[in-house]
Amino acid sequence: MSAAVIIGYDRGMARWEPDSRGRLEQAALALYGERGFENTTVAEIAARAGLTERTFFRYFADKREVLFSGAGTLQEVLVSAAVSAPDSAAPIDAVAAALEAAGALLQERREFARHRQAVIAASTELRERELIKLASLASALADALRRRGATGPAATLTAEAGIAVFKVAFERWVNESNQEDLPQLIRESMDELKAVTAGR
Amino acid sequence: MSAAVIIGYDRGMARWEPDSRGRLEQAALALYGERGFENTTVAEIAARAGLTERTFFRYFADKREVLFSGAGTLQEVLVSAAVSAPDSAAPIDAVAAALEAAGALLQERREFARHRQAVIAASTELRERELIKLASLASALADALRRRGATGPAATLTAEAGIAVFKVAFERWVNESNQEDLPQLIRESMDELKAVTAGR
Repeated sequence: MSAAVIIGYDRGMARWEPDSRGRLEQAALALYGERGFENTTVAEIAARAGLTERTFFRYFADKREVLFSGAGTLQEVLVSAAVSAPDSAAPIDAVAAALEAAGALLQERREFARHRQAVIAASTELRERELIKLASLASALADALRRRGATGPAATLTAEAGIAVFKVAFERWVNESNQEDLPQLIRESMDELKAVTAGR
Repeated sequence: MSAAVIIGYDRGMARWEPDSRGRLEQAALALYGERGFENTTVAEIAARAGLTERTFFRYFADKREVLFSGAGTLQEVLVSAAVSAPDSAAPIDAVAAALEAAGALLQERREFARHRQAVIAASTELRERELIKLASLASALADALRRRGATGPAATLTAEAGIAVFKVAFERWVNESNQEDLPQLIRESMDELKAVTAGR
């Protein structure tokens, strides 16, 4: 399975006049799509955005990070929704609420996500970076569940299973011709997870 | 959560007189542990093993791959066990059987696995490579389930959830002071997954 591409959201990019960060992201994505990640330099990204290399490195540590700038926001949304789920919610239901909140956040940017996934799928380096980000999301989600009282292995398993649900739903969302929205696909995938682990 | 380190098995290393591949692996692991992955060169690994750089590259594509040479064997065991589970077994039970078979394979090498995990945890590059290998295992396992008749998203979810079970069990196995064996920890983690997804 190719890595899902789910953490590129950035509020900044939705503005009418993108800030420097958003301009750099858009320039990088365009250039990676045109000539490939490996064949694009930071200097070229900065030039396309009408900015300097120095400005690029003020925002991003390297050429890969420019595609993952939304990971922090996504993690905050996930953690916040998990922590604020009702006390009575089982951990898996807190995770479901968190995933749906994240899905609603991403829903607005389907075309961007499709373009970005094609770029990431074409580069081993980018796929590796993505998997690291997903592992971080799972870890943060497990921590959020522990704050709700879940214990070690159960918290980790619930979070990892939740991220698996998100990956599957996200891939369907960007790859399939159906027009279901992401929160709906997340609900379907969560139901599917419950069915398969119940041995159905 | 740090990445689990579960794919370093190599039958060759258990021999009394390790072959060139095994000697290179042992030399690399020792050097990475002593001076760090980033500070070790292929020339140094080859010298420690009493071999040439050219021999190193006959076996391994790069400095990272030397720690993942067992991934192919592990994948074969997983796939073979999943495919050969009884026709009547639900996909999740075929996955459980596959994970236990892989766990039994790894069980003999706990000290090696501990050492290797410490090395991998210390290097972002190695953690990324490990996550790619785990994603490949999940993908191969999903393919095996499809050969058994499972459909797309269900097969992927079952496989991904299974790999999450394996990661959690493996981490407990290498990190905790308890002496439970890996197949047993896999069974416990699988039961835990079933419990959490059932909302308990």
